[in-house]
Amino acid sequence: MNKVININQKLSLFDELWTPKIIDEFNGQQLKLAKVKGEFVWHDHANEDELFLVIKGKLSIEFKDKTVEINEGELYIVPRGVEHKPFAEEETHILLIEPSTTKHTGEVIDKLTVEKADRI
Amino acid sequence: MNKVININQKLSLFDELWTPKIIDEFNGQQLKLAKVKGEFVWHDHANEDELFLVIKGKLSIEFKDKTVEINEGELYIVPRGVEHKPFAEEETHILLIEPSTTKHTGEVIDKLTVEKADRI
Repeated sequence: MNKVININQKLSLFDELWTPKIIDEFNGQQLKLAKVKGEFVWHDHANEDELFLVIKGKLSIEFKDKTVEINEGELYIVPRGVEHKPFAEEETHILLIEPSTTKHTGEVIDKLTVEKADRI
Repeated sequence: MNKVININQKLSLFDELWTPKIIDEFNGQQLKLAKVKGEFVWHDHANEDELFLVIKGKLSIEFKDKTVEINEGELYIVPRGVEHKPFAEEETHILLIEPSTTKHTGEVIDKLTVEKADRI
């Protein structure tokens, strides 16, 4: 049987940046937590929407035609196939939801790419 | 293009209890907000897992063999096919994620059943 998951307790278990950790799965989607600061890489996910919920801080996502700012208690869905580059000026904690098959840098292989996320 | 969604702003738009409102969709999943107080009905969802994230308050979910308590900042996934009955002593605000096809009372049709959730 499943367990109740406390988001802040799970966030206390790691410090690495841009390294999403899987905390649970449902309906083929993975729930991940990540700590981010600075810039990520431009990428897209051809067949998967990606949900970002900000737990603490502020996440910006740059698109080719605009930039959105997502503050604590706000969420945003990046539609499949749309190129984007997340960045955060200060350390920011986010909950991500995306299909179990999604690689976080999309088809772009970068030094930031994590081949297989840990489960915590 | 999608919009940034502020969870508390969306919660301020309605007062009805046990009446989930759709706020967005991704990968065939609907994101819903609900305000709950008191008891819901026993039900299950044969083919769909259901995620509950508590935004404010405390949600309890009764199962045949145990009861779990989900507090603010905590989440819980009810696996498909498992009978459950949510309840909350005080008014509680929750984010739900489940497939677009899910009826909130499962196959049980009750006076609480909402045939089609509103989008806010």
